Amino acid sequence: METKQRAVRLSVADNVVVAAASVPSGTVLEGEGVVVPRMVPMGHKIATRPIPSGEAVVKFGQVIGYATKDIAPGEHVHVQNCAMGAHDQNYRIGADYRPVQLRNDWTGATFRGIRRPDGRVGTRNFIALCATVNCSASVIRYVADRINGSCVLDAYPHIDGVVALAHGTGCGMSGNDEGAENLERVLWGYATHPNVCAAIFIGLGCEVMQIGRLKAKYGFSEGTRFHTLTIQETGGTRKTIETAVRMVEEILPDLGGAVREDVPASELMLALQCGGSDGYSGITANPALGRAADMLVEYGGTVVLSETPEIYGAEHLLVRRAASTEVGQKLIDRIRWWEDYTTRNKGEMNNNPSPGNKAGGLTTILEKSLGATAKGGNSPLADVVLYGEKITSHGLVFMDSPGYDPASATGQIASGAQLICFTTGRGSAFGSKPAPTIKLATNSRLYESMPDDMDLNCGDIIDGGASVESKAEEIFRKVLAVASGERSKSELLGLGDNEFVPWQIGAVM
Amino acid sequence: METKQRAVRLSVADNVVVAAASVPSGTVLEGEGVVVPRMVPMGHKIATRPIPSGEAVVKFGQVIGYATKDIAPGEHVHVQNCAMGAHDQNYRIGADYRPVQLRNDWTGATFRGIRRPDGRVGTRNFIALCATVNCSASVIRYVADRINGSCVLDAYPHIDGVVALAHGTGCGMSGNDEGAENLERVLWGYATHPNVCAAIFIGLGCEVMQIGRLKAKYGFSEGTRFHTLTIQETGGTRKTIETAVRMVEEILPDLGGAVREDVPASELMLALQCGGSDGYSGITANPALGRAADMLVEYGGTVVLSETPEIYGAEHLLVRRAASTEVGQKLIDRIRWWEDYTTRNKGEMNNNPSPGNKAGGLTTILEKSLGATAKGGNSPLADVVLYGEKITSHGLVFMDSPGYDPASATGQIASGAQLICFTTGRGSAFGSKPAPTIKLATNSRLYESMPDDMDLNCGDIIDGGASVESKAEEIFRKVLAVASGERSKSELLGLGDNEFVPWQIGAVM
Ligand SMILES: [Ca+2]
Ligand SMILES: [Ca+2]
Ligand SMILES: [Ca+2]
Ligand SMILES: [Ca+2]
Ligand SMILES: [Ca+2]
Repeated sequence: METKQRAVRLSVADNVVVAAASVPSGTVLEGEGVVVPRMVPMGHKIATRPIPSGEAVVKFGQVIGYATKDIAPGEHVHVQNCAMGAHDQNYRIGADYRPVQLRNDWTGATFRGIRRPDGRVGTRNFIALCATVNCSASVIRYVADRINGSCVLDAYPHIDGVVALAHGTGCGMSGNDEGAENLERVLWGYATHPNVCAAIFIGLGCEVMQIGRLKAKYGFSEGTRFHTLTIQETGGTRKTIETAVRMVEEILPDLGGAVREDVPASELMLALQCGGSDGYSGITANPALGRAADMLVEYGGTVVLSETPEIYGAEHLLVRRAASTEVGQKLIDRIRWWEDYTTRNKGEMNNNPSPGNKAGGLTTILEKSLGATAKGGNSPLADVVLYGEKITSHGLVFMDSPGYDPASATGQIASGAQLICFTTGRGSAFGSKPAPTIKLATNSRLYESMPDDMDLNCGDIIDGGASVESKAEEIFRKVLAVASGERSKSELLGLGDNEFVPWQIGAVM
Repeated sequence: METKQRAVRLSVADNVVVAAASVPSGTVLEGEGVVVPRMVPMGHKIATRPIPSGEAVVKFGQVIGYATKDIAPGEHVHVQNCAMGAHDQNYRIGADYRPVQLRNDWTGATFRGIRRPDGRVGTRNFIALCATVNCSASVIRYVADRINGSCVLDAYPHIDGVVALAHGTGCGMSGNDEGAENLERVLWGYATHPNVCAAIFIGLGCEVMQIGRLKAKYGFSEGTRFHTLTIQETGGTRKTIETAVRMVEEILPDLGGAVREDVPASELMLALQCGGSDGYSGITANPALGRAADMLVEYGGTVVLSETPEIYGAEHLLVRRAASTEVGQKLIDRIRWWEDYTTRNKGEMNNNPSPGNKAGGLTTILEKSLGATAKGGNSPLADVVLYGEKITSHGLVFMDSPGYDPASATGQIASGAQLICFTTGRGSAFGSKPAPTIKLATNSRLYESMPDDMDLNCGDIIDGGASVESKAEEIFRKVLAVASGERSKSELLGLGDNEFVPWQIGAVM
């Protein structure tokens, strides 16, 4: 990889830039007008303005620590001259809240979406087969294979296919704990997703996660939109497959068309995800995605940040951007929940920079967690929701979840995201249905080595002269194009049938 | 269902029989020579001999409590005249240990098995694709679909197919806790299963459950038997699929034949499983399977009992049959572990008979848990192993697991079972690879309503004049036939690709 750019500016507000490769002594940083007096390693910070002792060091547009000595422009900023203050992790709910400056100019900030009868907008149009338990996993996969592999859908080009939402749980579990509630929300969130035009729940019959329980909880009844079947009542595996295939064939004519029309970007809910991070994640893809997220929020849309363990230690930064005391407190409550969850399970939450992190240029816990939260941008925190809980706010919303990609993305889709942007440095083979995933490479080497998986290269922020701002614009355009129906790489590969992984909490009994 | 038989004798040692339907007053019990003076409801016990106050009440060939009054033949035995003693749940390791009386006559107790180079015997012959993480689940499924759906295997009729072992975990987890050890044992157990002739591990590359870690732990290297690939190193989803398909095509000629030959039943490891139990489970299928299990043990074979939460409260009965202090203690240790596991997860272990159980005729906790353990028979307890731990003993072995069918069966197969017998009263759509599952209906109505799923009807113990003993013989013959290659119902349906569910313990991070 040829390095054309020696340092990356992550935000116009920053007083540091990040070395995109080792910066030799004497280098004049392009665009910054500063000379680097001594070699700075890749990933480390370089001051671009004088930072007097006690002043904030700003990266990602956020305070990551304070100068412990006077720092001159061009100097290496790290543990020898930068540290966190004693109160940097205090919760001051809403202290940094600034209302979103909504853009008035909508030109170009629209996509071709599918308007549903209830006013919501889909980016895809699937029939969902929802297994309530692993015991019906094979049945729903056979049904999906039968329909998708036949010519039944040829007459319905506006249907993207039948998706089988098979998973490993649904029984051998408590029926009234957080794990059961997670699964309920996920099943219901998928069944009612704006990218789904009809849902068939298929159970075995005697499982903990009863269809009747979902009916009672969410008050749905059979109709064109929702259908239910159990294997035990239908007479076994083969008869249930036949019955469900017929059911799909019968409802198809009643589902109506799904004409795409111009809708404003404010109708879009974009989920943010990362997996297989590398040293470039916090310099290229995450900050660029964060700026794109801010743009979407400025256009009135919604972005969903998640992966609670990865923001741990910097959650107070989000708390300070909270739109209300209640929202701030909800995030603090989830952090406390995670501390308990990991302790109960004999693990621990710890996001302190490791020796390896420090060698890589990360100075404080704030800076480390900001590398992950950077993809959420700098918008105020509009709401905090539970895993898979329906999101109704616009703006930046935090959905609680593990960092584990399939479990986190499953919750984000259940919460209503119609699209996912997924940054990866080491490479990911993730894909999702009914909401598609766009994958952003943090470095050009990855983009070139996994061409069938990567949608967009953010590595050219380092080696191709792209700025974070221009890359954000490119991501935003890509998001609108895929929302309008353009197939992402993971969709072209057909991925998404095996990545539905509801977050399982609680004992398996 | 016409009731031809009014009461079921579960063991020749019993001093009670069980009403197979409501028994009217004045009924003379066929074969027992006793008159029932007052109506006894279905599922309840009837004394067949005088049981003086203080004497043991014996059902399943086991003490389930003691007479609290003198009980006359024909009398209803329940809470009014039967209760557990104060010391009935004490652990007296090995107190009831009686060595297995091995049978010398092997005539007919053989099956047509596939003898492996290391001497072990397979009942099927699969190529296994083992995903180390959910991130490679789609890739291995595509590879299996490509091979199984093509004519590649036509030249290899002795290969049963390629099985894709996809699951939802492998990352977002601790790398060094019990959950990680569970997954390691499961992956390695499947890869080295006697029903598998070659295994390909496919990972993403950056997951917690590294292929290199498995290599180091189990000391395997690449060769005809084991192969490895990661998506990140191979260049993405599409290239990994192509590479793995080529890999399978290339190793096929080197796998050698798999000629079935006569092998003694002592080479068989049969796992016992139940799911969707009903009021007949403890009267028909479970006791019949228990007798068949005893027969296999008498022929030198191995049976695997599991589902720890379902034996809770009666574990001391197994402890008393333990072959050594160490084996008894291992079971006690697992019970303590489960108490901690459920408490940590805010649940509880409780197998006391509920009011519904009592109305159904279950008098004591011993009797309730014996209904579940009955399928293990009365053999001495030869060993206790962890979930998915390799079993090397012959005789009755207990493998720790949840009761949840797919998680429990996955562990049993990982431990080396080449066959599963699964009893069900409400109906199950379970199937498994690479070891097949035989499904036993506890009642004739189920057998008739799910004809494509049920292999064998145990309901005729109640309504068809079959005895537990004759049914055990029928099950034993079926086991040998399926072990010899006869396809079970779940195999004819193709089940087993979606029921691989490693037991996940610990926080998802
Ligand atoms: Ca991550
Ligand atoms: Ca992730
Ligand atoms: Ca074949
Ligand atoms: Ca069970
Ligand atoms: Ca079970």
